[in-house]
Amino acid sequence: MRDIVEIGLGKTAQRGYHLDEVAIVPSRRTRDVDDVATTWQLDAYRFEIPCVAHPSDATMSPASAIALGLLGGLGVLNVEGLWTRYEDPTKLLAELRALADADEPLTPRLQEIYAEPIKPELIAERVREIREGGVTVAVRVSPQHTLALAPVILDAGVDLLVIQGTVVSAEHVSTEDEPLNLKEFIADLDLPVIVGGCTNYQTALHLMRTGAAGVIVGIGADYLSTSDSVLGIRVPMATAIADAAAARRDYLDETGGRYVHLIADGGMHTSGDIAKAIGCGADAVMLGAPLAQVEGAPGGGLWWHSSASHPKLPRGAIGIVQEPLGSLEQVLYGPADDPDGQLNLFGGLRRAMAKCGYRDVKEFQKVGLVLDRA
Amino acid sequence: MRDIVEIGLGKTAQRGYHLDEVAIVPSRRTRDVDDVATTWQLDAYRFEIPCVAHPSDATMSPASAIALGLLGGLGVLNVEGLWTRYEDPTKLLAELRALADADEPLTPRLQEIYAEPIKPELIAERVREIREGGVTVAVRVSPQHTLALAPVILDAGVDLLVIQGTVVSAEHVSTEDEPLNLKEFIADLDLPVIVGGCTNYQTALHLMRTGAAGVIVGIGADYLSTSDSVLGIRVPMATAIADAAAARRDYLDETGGRYVHLIADGGMHTSGDIAKAIGCGADAVMLGAPLAQVEGAPGGGLWWHSSASHPKLPRGAIGIVQEPLGSLEQVLYGPADDPDGQLNLFGGLRRAMAKCGYRDVKEFQKVGLVLDRA
Amino acid sequence: MRDIVEIGLGKTAQRGYHLDEVAIVPSRRTRDVDDVATTWQLDAYRFEIPCVAHPSDATMSPASAIALGLLGGLGVLNVEGLWTRYEDPTKLLAELRALADADEPLTPRLQEIYAEPIKPELIAERVREIREGGVTVAVRVSPQHTLALAPVILDAGVDLLVIQGTVVSAEHVSTEDEPLNLKEFIADLDLPVIVGGCTNYQTALHLMRTGAAGVIVGIGADYLSTSDSVLGIRVPMATAIADAAAARRDYLDETGGRYVHLIADGGMHTSGDIAKAIGCGADAVMLGAPLAQVEGAPGGGLWWHSSASHPKLPRGAIGIVQEPLGSLEQVLYGPADDPDGQLNLFGGLRRAMAKCGYRDVKEFQKVGLVLDRA
Amino acid sequence: MRDIVEIGLGKTAQRGYHLDEVAIVPSRRTRDVDDVATTWQLDAYRFEIPCVAHPSDATMSPASAIALGLLGGLGVLNVEGLWTRYEDPTKLLAELRALADADEPLTPRLQEIYAEPIKPELIAERVREIREGGVTVAVRVSPQHTLALAPVILDAGVDLLVIQGTVVSAEHVSTEDEPLNLKEFIADLDLPVIVGGCTNYQTALHLMRTGAAGVIVGIGADYLSTSDSVLGIRVPMATAIADAAAARRDYLDETGGRYVHLIADGGMHTSGDIAKAIGCGADAVMLGAPLAQVEGAPGGGLWWHSSASHPKLPRGAIGIVQEPLGSLEQVLYGPADDPDGQLNLFGGLRRAMAKCGYRDVKEFQKVGLVLDRA
Repeated sequence: MRDIVEIGLGKTAQRGYHLDEVAIVPSRRTRDVDDVATTWQLDAYRFEIPCVAHPSDATMSPASAIALGLLGGLGVLNVEGLWTRYEDPTKLLAELRALADADEPLTPRLQEIYAEPIKPELIAERVREIREGGVTVAVRVSPQHTLALAPVILDAGVDLLVIQGTVVSAEHVSTEDEPLNLKEFIADLDLPVIVGGCTNYQTALHLMRTGAAGVIVGIGADYLSTSDSVLGIRVPMATAIADAAAARRDYLDETGGRYVHLIADGGMHTSGDIAKAIGCGADAVMLGAPLAQVEGAPGGGLWWHSSASHPKLPRGAIGIVQEPLGSLEQVLYGPADDPDGQLNLFGGLRRAMAKCGYRDVKEFQKVGLVLDRA
Repeated sequence: MRDIVEIGLGKTAQRGYHLDEVAIVPSRRTRDVDDVATTWQLDAYRFEIPCVAHPSDATMSPASAIALGLLGGLGVLNVEGLWTRYEDPTKLLAELRALADADEPLTPRLQEIYAEPIKPELIAERVREIREGGVTVAVRVSPQHTLALAPVILDAGVDLLVIQGTVVSAEHVSTEDEPLNLKEFIADLDLPVIVGGCTNYQTALHLMRTGAAGVIVGIGADYLSTSDSVLGIRVPMATAIADAAAARRDYLDETGGRYVHLIADGGMHTSGDIAKAIGCGADAVMLGAPLAQVEGAPGGGLWWHSSASHPKLPRGAIGIVQEPLGSLEQVLYGPADDPDGQLNLFGGLRRAMAKCGYRDVKEFQKVGLVLDRA
Repeated sequence: MRDIVEIGLGKTAQRGYHLDEVAIVPSRRTRDVDDVATTWQLDAYRFEIPCVAHPSDATMSPASAIALGLLGGLGVLNVEGLWTRYEDPTKLLAELRALADADEPLTPRLQEIYAEPIKPELIAERVREIREGGVTVAVRVSPQHTLALAPVILDAGVDLLVIQGTVVSAEHVSTEDEPLNLKEFIADLDLPVIVGGCTNYQTALHLMRTGAAGVIVGIGADYLSTSDSVLGIRVPMATAIADAAAARRDYLDETGGRYVHLIADGGMHTSGDIAKAIGCGADAVMLGAPLAQVEGAPGGGLWWHSSASHPKLPRGAIGIVQEPLGSLEQVLYGPADDPDGQLNLFGGLRRAMAKCGYRDVKEFQKVGLVLDRA
Repeated sequence: MRDIVEIGLGKTAQRGYHLDEVAIVPSRRTRDVDDVATTWQLDAYRFEIPCVAHPSDATMSPASAIALGLLGGLGVLNVEGLWTRYEDPTKLLAELRALADADEPLTPRLQEIYAEPIKPELIAERVREIREGGVTVAVRVSPQHTLALAPVILDAGVDLLVIQGTVVSAEHVSTEDEPLNLKEFIADLDLPVIVGGCTNYQTALHLMRTGAAGVIVGIGADYLSTSDSVLGIRVPMATAIADAAAARRDYLDETGGRYVHLIADGGMHTSGDIAKAIGCGADAVMLGAPLAQVEGAPGGGLWWHSSASHPKLPRGAIGIVQEPLGSLEQVLYGPADDPDGQLNLFGGLRRAMAKCGYRDVKEFQKVGLVLDRA
């Protein structure tokens, strides 16, 4: 049944499916939409909706992290982004938007802006700002800089740490630097860690064994991502999520009960996409572009993935996503006055669950799927 | 042979096929086109063509329901549409068309218009109008409002009742309201009920067991539908119809002879589409957009599905389908002076049956199919 | 290995492949292009190239049938076309082209023009004209009119008779007219008959059993055809040809040596398409649009299939194919000064055969194929 | 597991996959990008990057062959190109570019230009120029002209000989000329020969048995190629490379250790494409269009494949690829200031290898692949 294809003599490839290739199949039962719960709990933290922000400067400032937290999601600030490189990055963000409006090339300027060094004192400052907002505090750091930046981050006092790179493995090999040993690092911490991205069963399982509370599945790729063109890496998300869910089950069994949450990251733009990601086995979704296009988003309507600013090998474009469709609240909870699935994201999820008769997110992971051409 | 695909470890999906992925294969026999019958009989009602109107305000007014009935099809008025909310909705319909011509957003205005409460006295009035037209009287009500509106509808005296929602199940769960028990409700009626939509074998079988005379297969989705983006629900119709036909056979066997009719609803625009739906196992087709674009259609050339007016989560767009191709009669029976399959819908069906040597609609369900890339 | 797919419970479809989904695989041998033969022999008639004209008024006038014959192919005049309805149809053909240039609707005028009755005396006249050109004389008649027109055609003295409809079966059922019994009809003739189109193994086998010398595979469908939209009938040609080739083998065995030629008709526009059709098992190809776009083609650069003029249910558009690429000779034999495969059609075939090491058309039917996404 | 499909009764086709249908799957390990080697060694010649130039006049002049060699790749001059037909072809190249800018047809002029005879004395001259540049000297000759031109080429003193045609077999049949016996010819030489293209296991194995040091896999087809339209030949490269890699393993076994290098040729434009080709089993890649669009490329930004100039049957278009993205060095090694994968081709390869934890090109051939819709 598993679709392993021999692409040539002796060379096989697993067949992978994208979220838009699957659709949800209503079952023999329906349910009142008000009887459906979309809450999510990670470690001690409870959220109204299973929504994590992708830590791009386009989506997350201290203020927008607070706003998302107050509305029931989890904001994540990138401590290697502009907010820790500049005292006030808003002028630079405005400049990028102006370049976009003038149809000027954006990547070279992005590369320049991110060449500015990170200021450790700004990390503490940004964490303090978010904490004062009264929400769960989470920041993102790359695996390469985790050892160097961890002391500052931990001193600043965060609730959750997100260690995220395009592709993160549990075993990094280096002949030069002391590589990050994720397992030891996480064991020494007393706060939950989310780690990723990963793209398949094996890597997901190895990341779970590091002690992470959550694993990011996917590489955050969407229509602006060029990781396929640059690296040849592309992640069919339906398959990646389902494979990681199998790793979650096997790890649950091997540990006698440790449940690691899967946060799907990549290509979800509509409530239908979110429903499908959960239907494939995700516990929560990491949203980028949908948060970059809310009114007042930090990037002013621009969206870019963190790998877009790489100094020698950028792996994503930066561009205007779409004129704002509505406020953050409207994007998350509606009401929608446009039928394309980009408003009322979690109202749409809730209704999809109701149409299929499910009560909560965990139960909805069992929903039936159909695979078609589209 | 059944195509069950493992999209990831332990998560399977059934592969589904759309109508445009299949085509009809002529057999070893051909037949005179005049020897072919396209009649359809549901309970005591006989129709020249297996054609049911999708109960959208874009296609059905009392007048257009009469016109379709006189031409041999079955008109269905939506008792939760504009004709039961307004004494005279024609000005509102004209306003929508004017907005469309001016390229203004239509959904917000649609939401406003449908916020007006339903007037029970208008239901009786509309039913009377249709009855006076001398045709079979059928109205559509949603499952949510069936218990409340049924007394009025039944008092008004309809021939057929259509209980239709995007997705209808035989078992609705609610902690608040008394949910509709379809089986008990239908048992208490003495008129035939058509119920749906459903999308698969199991739901179809359960709906048949409610005692319905007909089951709607599909969710009416076409190019303006956004149920995939909003809910993640998409119905490959060839598979849905064939699966429901299997449920029809099994139910026929389990009841020792009760034949429930399948009415396919979704994405059929041409005579070729209709032929394929029947070739997959449908007994009749429910047409929306093709009736919305006839000369004098109630929506003035606009088309929208009822879920497009949802106040918080619209699941379909509203737009101009196409300038009218011809009169209702020409759309149904030709002659066609345009070769794209949108005129002479049932003449095209008849000729397809003749080319394959079949005599009637029931027999044509056995026609051979080919599945290809397109 | 045969790809029979269950599209829904208990309803299967054969998977079919189009010519553009397959490609030719060079084998371990190559050959000089001058050592390759493209000749074709049908009954007593020998042709330089396996090329039959599709009998549309867009491609075939008496003059163009002669021109094709002199260049080594087989011209076929439609005796139900304009040349037998009008003394001089050239003004009507020019009018159609003028309408096309003015972007006016063409189908209604086409329907009017073909409403003119066929004049038997013109059939004799046209046959005489072609015969005087010194080439093999072939005409096309539809199955419906074969019994009525055969006496005139046979009296006129043709070499080959082509009985062609969109879909022709060996068993036509009619409650009114005396239907054409192909087997008896052909047995009574003493000239070779080509009959079709057909789309699958069974129909091809039955047509072979009528005694035909050649069977047309396909329904002539190309990008202007709407038989899929109107009738739901679409023919994946690679599969249709290969299936008919299996019927040819089985019929050869059942008759102890009667070889029926397969003439592929549908969607071939380039030398690559022709090579693939033969690689799938065809003995010759029937070309429409490629001949409609040569300099001086009867349709003046317009192309339409005969079903495009149906009075009530046209099943094909009429339109300008492309500005002429070159003379008939250049289209068939080059030289090409454009690399898109539409010039030097049979030089391209010859070179494809050489690249794969084959000597003649019959041998080339064994060439290896690859099936890919495209 | 091998995907052999019956396209019709008794006619099978192997299913083939294109490079863009596969993607690379990171494994459980990652590696520092500086610990990754991209070197390649063919016979006695060592290269910094596994990069061979496609010998088109659009990419290769003596000067550009030197430039590529100095930057670590292998330049290959076509001895049947313009540089051996004309003393100074630069004016002709400029004229072609001017025609392109004026949107004039290019193929007829290309055919004229290549009608000029080859001058043997220019071969010696061009080889001398390249040798004086201090790089490995390689030239390309077609199989048809190998016997005639070999004496001049060998006298001129090249390091590597590339015998390349669209499709080359180890067994060419001719009733007229004395055909080239590759095995004997190569045995008599004392320099390494690269030969191809080939498209499958069998032809690759036979070419290896001729004694070649390297075999070209593919026919150089990219978006300007029309070999599919003209000849019906199309090469799904992922399958072709993997099949040829199986031939390499079997030949290694049958010879007890002779390793023949595979040089993939066709449709690679980005670092992601290069990574995939190696991931399928290639040892090196032959690049055409990517080198045609560097600043100062011989074709001035035009790209054409050698078969585009065929006098009677051109099999490729000539056109402007894209305005130059950067210098040759930047295209090969970055830095990239554009994220689309066309700059820093081998930096991208290196990083892909690092993300998957591999150390060198040979090891990277084992990387996992996923096959998806895209």
